[in-house]
Parts: sequence; C-alpha cells; structure tokens
Amino acid sequence: MAKLLFIAKEKAPGESRVAGSPDTVKKLVAAGLEVVVEADAGSQSRIPDAEFEKAGATIGTAADAARADVVLKVRRPDAEEAAGYKSGAIVIAIMDPYGHNDLIADLGSKGLTTFAMELMPRITRAQSMDVLSSQANLAGYQAVIDAAAAFDRAMPMMMTAAGTVPAAKVFVMGAGVAGLQAIATAKRLGAAVSATDVRPASKEQVASLGGKFIAVEDEEFKAAETAGGYAKEMSKEYQAKQAALVADHIAKQDIVITTALIPGRPAPRLVTADMIASMRPGSILVDLAVERGGNVEGAVAGEVVDKNGVRIIGYNNVPGRIAASASLLYAKNLLTFLQTMIKDGDIAINFDDELVKATALTHGGKVIHPNFGGGTPAP
Amino acid sequence: MAKLLFIAKEKAPGESRVAGSPDTVKKLVAAGLEVVVEADAGSQSRIPDAEFEKAGATIGTAADAARADVVLKVRRPDAEEAAGYKSGAIVIAIMDPYGHNDLIADLGSKGLTTFAMELMPRITRAQSMDVLSSQANLAGYQAVIDAAAAFDRAMPMMMTAAGTVPAAKVFVMGAGVAGLQAIATAKRLGAAVSATDVRPASKEQVASLGGKFIAVEDEEFKAAETAGGYAKEMSKEYQAKQAALVADHIAKQDIVITTALIPGRPAPRLVTADMIASMRPGSILVDLAVERGGNVEGAVAGEVVDKNGVRIIGYNNVPGRIAASASLLYAKNLLTFLQTMIKDGDIAINFDDELVKATALTHGGKVIHPNFGGGTPAP
Repeated sequence: MAKLLFIAKEKAPGESRVAGSPDTVKKLVAAGLEVVVEADAGSQSRIPDAEFEKAGATIGTAADAARADVVLKVRRPDAEEAAGYKSGAIVIAIMDPYGHNDLIADLGSKGLTTFAMELMPRITRAQSMDVLSSQANLAGYQAVIDAAAAFDRAMPMMMTAAGTVPAAKVFVMGAGVAGLQAIATAKRLGAAVSATDVRPASKEQVASLGGKFIAVEDEEFKAAETAGGYAKEMSKEYQAKQAALVADHIAKQDIVITTALIPGRPAPRLVTADMIASMRPGSILVDLAVERGGNVEGAVAGEVVDKNGVRIIGYNNVPGRIAASASLLYAKNLLTFLQTMIKDGDIAINFDDELVKATALTHGGKVIHPNFGGGTPAP
Repeated sequence: MAKLLFIAKEKAPGESRVAGSPDTVKKLVAAGLEVVVEADAGSQSRIPDAEFEKAGATIGTAADAARADVVLKVRRPDAEEAAGYKSGAIVIAIMDPYGHNDLIADLGSKGLTTFAMELMPRITRAQSMDVLSSQANLAGYQAVIDAAAAFDRAMPMMMTAAGTVPAAKVFVMGAGVAGLQAIATAKRLGAAVSATDVRPASKEQVASLGGKFIAVEDEEFKAAETAGGYAKEMSKEYQAKQAALVADHIAKQDIVITTALIPGRPAPRLVTADMIASMRPGSILVDLAVERGGNVEGAVAGEVVDKNGVRIIGYNNVPGRIAASASLLYAKNLLTFLQTMIKDGDIAINFDDELVKATALTHGGKVIHPNFGGGTPAP
C-alpha cells in the first residue's frame, strides 16, 4: 500500500502559508505517494482545493492526518495536532526549536520523527532546501514594499514641471539574504540605498547591488575585508567608531530596514531610542527581527508603533504577507528534502546523512538532536 | 502695509496635504507678502510649524484667515471657512466645481475671488501650475505601491535555489499622467507591464516606458496612431473588437490599475463584474477614478472590496496617501500661479490673462466662469 502524505491547513493565527503546491503534489504523487491535502489549506496562498485535486491529491479533513506516514506543515504542530498523528509518522516543518525543548520532547514522546527545516546546513547540496533563504528573500522584498506603502513620499527621484521630488534615503542593516533583497528592491524603486553589516566582506555584495556600504574603513576594516567570509570579531575600539558612524547616518535616513538575526539567540539591538529620536517625523523603520526580540528599540511584534511621527513597522510573519510566493518556494524546499528519502514509493531515512543529522529533532520516542536535549550536546 | 497671505489647515477628513511648503513660503515672503500659516497645517505632510516659521511665516489660527488678502487651500473652503474670509479676498484651491454650481455661487456672493487650480489650461506656460499633472503623477506611483503591498506575490521575477517566482502581470488602463507613472513604477519593480488607452497615439509613450500596448492593430488603428494627439473617436466596430481583446487580456492579469477620468463627467466604466469574475483569486484592481464613480464595477470609494478573492482597492485621495511629496508639488503649483499676479509686494489680477480666464470662478460678488453659471456658457 502506498505511503500516505498529508498536507495540513495551518492553524496558527496569521499563518497564511501552506506546505504544498500543485507542482510539489504532482511530483510526490509521481514518486508513488498517496497525497491528501486538508480542505482549504491553500486558500490564503491562492491555491484552491481544485488545483491540488488536479495535481493528483485527495482533499481531506484534519482527521486524515491520523492515517498519514508523512505530515507536511509550515509551523510546528501544537499538542492537539500532534496527538492526532500516528506513532512513527514523519513530521516536517519550521519547528522553531530554540527555547522550546519541552515541546520538542513532547513530540518525541508521541513517537513522531520530526525534522526542523530551518536547521538545514548551508551547503551546496542543501541550497534548494534552505527555508531560511527562501523565506528571508521574500521578507526582504516585502519589507521595502511595506515601507514604501507607509512612507509619505515617493521612493524615486521625480523631476516634474513643479519641481524635483528627491529620492528616498533607505538604509539596510544586515546584508544577509533578506538584507540583500531589500537593497535590490529599494534600488529598483529608485531609492538612494546604503547598507551595513558586521562582516566587512559583505561590502562587495552591497556595492554589486548599487548600495553604498557604511563602515569606518580604517586599516582594521581593510584587513578584515580581504579576509573574506565570516571574519573574526572586530576590536572594541572599531565597534565604537562604527556605532558612532551608523548613529550619525541613521539621523539622515528616510527608511531604515533591519534584518539581523542570530540563530537561537535574541536579535541584536541595532537601533536605539536615541537614534529613532534623531530621525525626521515621517521616517519609517521596518524591523524584520521583531519576532526575535527586535533590532529596533521600542518595536512591538504585530504592531506599527509611532514615536513622534517616526513609525516602527513590526509585522509578524513577513513572508506570510506574500504568501502565494512564500508557499511555492517553501513547498519546493520540502519536496527537495523529501526526495532524498523517497525510493520506489517507500520512505527510508538515512540517519547518517548530514542533512538528516542536522535537522532531525526526534525519533524512536525521544529527542535525538544534541542541541535540544538529545544525546550529547554538540561541542 | 504688506498683503497678508494665509495658508490654511485642511478640515476635510482624510485630507493630509497642505497648500504651502517652506520653499514656497520663503519665496512669498521674499516677494513682499506677509505669510501666516495655520498651526499644525503641515503636520500630516511632514512639515512642522517650526519649518514654516524658519522660512519666514508666522504661525496663526483659523481666525487669522479673516485678515487675509489671499487664502491658499488644497480643497474648496466649506461654508463656515468661507464665512470667515473678508470680502475681496482671493482664494485659490482645487475647487471641484463640476456639479457644485450652487456652492461656487455661494463663494461668489460672499465677495470672494476664487480660482480653481484644476482648470489650468494645459499649455507650456502653465505646465508648472498643473495640479492635475503633479497630483496624478504621484497617484500613479502610489497605485502601484498600494497594489504591491496588497498583492500576495512578488512583483519581479525571482530566480532562487528553490525555483522561480514569475513576474507579476500588471495592466494599466488609461495612459495619461497617472497611467504613465504607474507603468514606469511597475516596470521599476520588475513586473510584466501592459497598458491601453483610447488614444492610439499613446502606444509610443507606453512602449517607451517598456510597456506592451494592448490594441487591435487593424488599418483603422494604424491610421489613428499616426494622426497623433487626441484622435477622432474610433468606429463602433473597432470599439467592440478592442473591448473583446481587453476582456480576454484582463483574465490573465495579476494587477489591473485604472486611471480614466473625463473632466466634469462620471468616470467611464472600463472593467465589468464579468471581467473581475474572470480573474484569479489573489488578483488586485486599483481604481484611481473611484471618487468620480469608478472605472471598475463594484469599486467603493474609501474601501477595499473583495469579490471571490479578487480585491478592488478604492482608496480616496490617493495623492494624499503620499502627502509629503504631494504637498511640495502642489505648493509649487500655487506659487508659480501666484507669481504671475504679484508685483512689488502687491497683487494685481489681469482678467485678460488666459490663465486667469480659465481658472477664475467668482469675482466682484458673482460667478464669472461661463461653465459654472457665469456670463455666457462656452459654446
């Protein structure tokens, strides 16, 4: 009998994404699996049930999860959902395990084999499974769109018969995947874009997108810049000079977008209340790290905060604000990972595979990931 | 004694613009006028009172309007405001006179000399006074930003490790000032842009911005295209063929932006309920003509209407959504017009000037504009 794969409708409020697409369903069916999609699962990602059906899925209810050998989700299942899965089922999602060792242990004790997609190693082979990249890329795009929609001026310079509207000044803090896409999108819209990052080596990437890199370019910086990649931490003296430069720069910006996240730790504070007070009324900050404590002092998750006319946008789940695109890419990330386990319609997990080692949280009734209470913690 | 010019704080709900800027105040003061700005007038356009003061204005209250020789506003004063102005005062605003002959007559009977900026003739000399252009340009920009913010996918094509996000298909109906800026902005964001207009000659403008012109290009079209400018009306047969082509095209679009306005008449209906029903859920329509009855069937002024997952955005006062830029340009339009009347710190209206003839509604206690009940109607 074919293995049954279940794609759940997300229950978390505000979660508009779905863990499958017509494209991935078609490929899973072709690989020999029976696919059941919970009714209405894709409705907020612009995928009607009929399109999943056309791709070869059956439309079911939440109760069908009980028969599933594999459950695909966006978010970690809550206790009620997990109680409905059969022992031995594989559950793949963005598990958000940091700080939730107890919840992960619960999933283990139910006999579930769970995988956290966000722990995928950043190696070439796993690039197409990298949910942090696929979702951060869209979040960086949407951050600029959200800023532009709230902003009370045009982004591009406009030369009109009635005078010139100056280009908006956009400053992106953190030049990872989200930051680079934010730079690219703000440039597209015609803004004057600058960016910074703790890695001097990112200067070249920022410049290649047309952004100006903001850094104290002393001898220490130049040495670190050519070292490439994740350079050693800069000296305290350098950090102080850089902080002063950034503070001075922020006072002149119209829009600041912050994107700095450190896995498993609270987001670093990049923008202080004093810096916000230095900005002109009408300016906009977008804090993409707000769900992790925020890069911006005073940012509130799920809210737009007004500080003397400067607004701090702290939307939750920014990839979910662009759900149709986010779901397509997330579904593809899941599919590519699953394909490493599917053979002749059956599913076999190779616990020696580095992808499995990095992402498997629970198996055989217990937590197996060393970072979340399983075995020996990684050194 | 210097002439007193008063810049009012707008009372209309949702009107965030202001009829002056630090730049225009400075020039008015330099021209010998005394300038009073109502407190808080610029607060929604990012101009604090202090900036007006620094430019040479005094900050006053609504009561100061009673002393004013010239009142600058964004919107037509209501009865209460007008009652506060002295007889003989000049009032310049976007007067919205069509269909409001009685209200215009009231302003006349109060002894006010009123000018409607939106009636400025479209001649080279008056280009820098053209409020329809300056505001429509920003509305066209903001329409795309509003659409992108509501849209559940990315606008540009994105080639990622997890697959390709296709470019959004944006269709702009009406290639006037707003339409052309909408085309340009959607192109900036990386969308696949098409446009149409009743004037075949606009094909070249659309193409020059990178848009695809949607038209039945038969012999009749080609003849009209080369005729240039406002061509004669196309045949009924042509119109029917074109309507069928457009209906077919709309069914394939992600975003449709409509911009068709006819001065003094209701907006033409461009998109029917059937066409909306043909669009995929998640698609977006933005109706920039919604305050004039709407180009889109079912659009509601001031609301976002959902029709089976297709949303129709009908925001009021779209230039006011980008108030800081809109106010700067509008203030400049007013200044340039006023400068034609100011001489040695005094104000003299030349009623033979074609700009005055086109825009003056009331003077000497009565309506003088032929189109709104004054003198002989224009033929």
